[in-house]
Amino acid sequence: MSGPLTGIRVVDLTRVLAGPFCAMVLADLGAEVIKIERPITGDDSRAYPPFQNQTSAYFVSVNRGKKSVTMDLKDPDAKEVLLRLVEKSDIFIENFKPGVADRLGLSYEELEKVNPRIIYGSSCGYGQTGPYRNKASYDIIIQGMSGMMSITGPDADHPTKVGSSIADIVTGLYLCISLLAALNAREKTGKGQKIDVAMLDCMVSILENALARYTCTGIVPVPVGNVHPSIAPFFTAKTKDHWINIAVGNQDLWKRFCDLTGLSFLVNDERFATNERRVEHWAVLKPILEAALLEKTRDEWLALFEQESIPSGPIYTMAEVVNDAQIAAREMILSVFHTQGGEFKVPGIPMKFSGTVPSDPCTAPVLGEHNQEIFLGLLGLSCEEYMKLKEKGAI
Amino acid sequence: MSGPLTGIRVVDLTRVLAGPFCAMVLADLGAEVIKIERPITGDDSRAYPPFQNQTSAYFVSVNRGKKSVTMDLKDPDAKEVLLRLVEKSDIFIENFKPGVADRLGLSYEELEKVNPRIIYGSSCGYGQTGPYRNKASYDIIIQGMSGMMSITGPDADHPTKVGSSIADIVTGLYLCISLLAALNAREKTGKGQKIDVAMLDCMVSILENALARYTCTGIVPVPVGNVHPSIAPFFTAKTKDHWINIAVGNQDLWKRFCDLTGLSFLVNDERFATNERRVEHWAVLKPILEAALLEKTRDEWLALFEQESIPSGPIYTMAEVVNDAQIAAREMILSVFHTQGGEFKVPGIPMKFSGTVPSDPCTAPVLGEHNQEIFLGLLGLSCEEYMKLKEKGAI
Repeated sequence: MSGPLTGIRVVDLTRVLAGPFCAMVLADLGAEVIKIERPITGDDSRAYPPFQNQTSAYFVSVNRGKKSVTMDLKDPDAKEVLLRLVEKSDIFIENFKPGVADRLGLSYEELEKVNPRIIYGSSCGYGQTGPYRNKASYDIIIQGMSGMMSITGPDADHPTKVGSSIADIVTGLYLCISLLAALNAREKTGKGQKIDVAMLDCMVSILENALARYTCTGIVPVPVGNVHPSIAPFFTAKTKDHWINIAVGNQDLWKRFCDLTGLSFLVNDERFATNERRVEHWAVLKPILEAALLEKTRDEWLALFEQESIPSGPIYTMAEVVNDAQIAAREMILSVFHTQGGEFKVPGIPMKFSGTVPSDPCTAPVLGEHNQEIFLGLLGLSCEEYMKLKEKGAI
Repeated sequence: MSGPLTGIRVVDLTRVLAGPFCAMVLADLGAEVIKIERPITGDDSRAYPPFQNQTSAYFVSVNRGKKSVTMDLKDPDAKEVLLRLVEKSDIFIENFKPGVADRLGLSYEELEKVNPRIIYGSSCGYGQTGPYRNKASYDIIIQGMSGMMSITGPDADHPTKVGSSIADIVTGLYLCISLLAALNAREKTGKGQKIDVAMLDCMVSILENALARYTCTGIVPVPVGNVHPSIAPFFTAKTKDHWINIAVGNQDLWKRFCDLTGLSFLVNDERFATNERRVEHWAVLKPILEAALLEKTRDEWLALFEQESIPSGPIYTMAEVVNDAQIAAREMILSVFHTQGGEFKVPGIPMKFSGTVPSDPCTAPVLGEHNQEIFLGLLGLSCEEYMKLKEKGAI
């Protein structure tokens, strides 16, 4: 693959999600990502369901485009080989609990000695500092602590987590941004640096205006479902078949919406005369609109609304996402191949570059698939050294 | 502010959220972000509530660290000045609907003529290509179309949007990654390039395993609330006062959890003997656990669970986020100052660099605050030229 990060080599010690997601984005951009895995079992996520030919779809979906190399990091000879790899690399990432990398002799200070240009990225639940640094973290725990769950859900009695592991993913994206920014700085300074990205911090940073709204007004936000606090109608409704999202953002759209839905009489109703009044009387207005929307199917409504430029859209299931014309046109469903598991369909790459050559067929690695290439080729171990490491289970 | 992007200049034509969020992250990293706004009214989000001294908290929360310069892009003289600014810059970003930048004479092809090194980033709802490219997009519409709403919510009957404008924010993060990757490529090629990032693509890319799960098994995922599909107990429960998240990931934790909650008798119950069986009999198990958890307050439980290393956490409200010890220790609540609005508390910067000097007091700009600095200083306009532009309302 030739992309904007071609020529950048990444040593990736991360497992499961936040770190691997970051490394996947780096690989999508053309970096050479060498994923270091435990011998025999590999990344925990290789054991996560569902499976296709005994291969985890979960693993494949976040590890495409990487090379897999096995190492037992507790073996001093394997560690020595790892340091030789660090010497030849640009970026090193880990997502152990704080302190673990230090105990393995893989702290920034150690790595800096063998390669002062190395950029060292750490991600963990709470960060390398602060009172909670050693606490266990799961995506849902972080979603709760960050405040995100307190503003997500159908109503105040149902704080709800985001359906995907958003805390891990956003952390992966921020780690990626940090690494690339440090790469830019290195062009000037010639020096690497250490980066510390925490899931809790990342989730707080994406609360958007909820936090500023609270600090400004003192009013504590609660989940409000799919409505907008200051625009109406702006909601999710059931049609004859599927759900639909509708956002009527101004007075002109409101008139057109009423005409299309056979509710023209609402236009002259004082209670709904302005957006402010519609927000105020939403409890009265909502059931009237809901009843009208049940009269046609989702796709019938969407076609009508589109004619009048009323912002609206479906709530796609995964089955519909996979079959949508725009998503297909943007190549957002990607085939990834795995030697044992076969072909998997996964989300594509959302960054389109004019100067980038289209990518090769995308593959996810079998455990240790690139051992020979990296150990014998890149690092120049002798066959004897290689076999010795292999025999004692160090790789 | 001195950060890893110090020395990088960004011309920012974006409005409201996705683009401004990207530009904010660039500014947080030390880039000089020059935000171009319409004269008189500026970015739409300057009119978004809530307000403090007539200043939008919403605007302040995503525009810290930027410089504000006014320009009427339809005025040919202003456009000419803008091109001079592009000549001296590294990055240009816009989030108009597809085609608008072209009509303004601000396509990549035009900008490349004055500065072949310029990196040109576009973000919009559906992308610059494909059948929906001209459709109107709102965050909620994209959340629905991406499939994210179909996997978020308390149950299958309540597809729910994420509480913050996650489609905008994730798009801002991906745009930022793309720009920095292109900056890296420019070090080698000497050339800029054009980047196209779409909200729909970005949201599809963070569906995590939901999409791979569907394509692998054919089973369409639905919202399942806060439980884990294959771990139990893993849920949200009410305590005597507040909500709590609990994740009991293995057999040892399960025993400790039962002992702590006075439910030791469950350990020997065949129905709950293994994780698989607990998942299978969750409907029976859940009310038993819920009743027990009502006996103590959230903080009492959290203290007990922490002693036994059982992953658990609060569902913080914004009021609690602002007061948490870890979030404070990580400096994740930041004060931003605005000349007219005063001090605002907003989410902090989640990327911590060892080589970065702590940031200066952070400010958000008054509309046109940096006109003189940029027009007279950086671009070297004469006072006459400047006054002429000002008088005719071009800036």
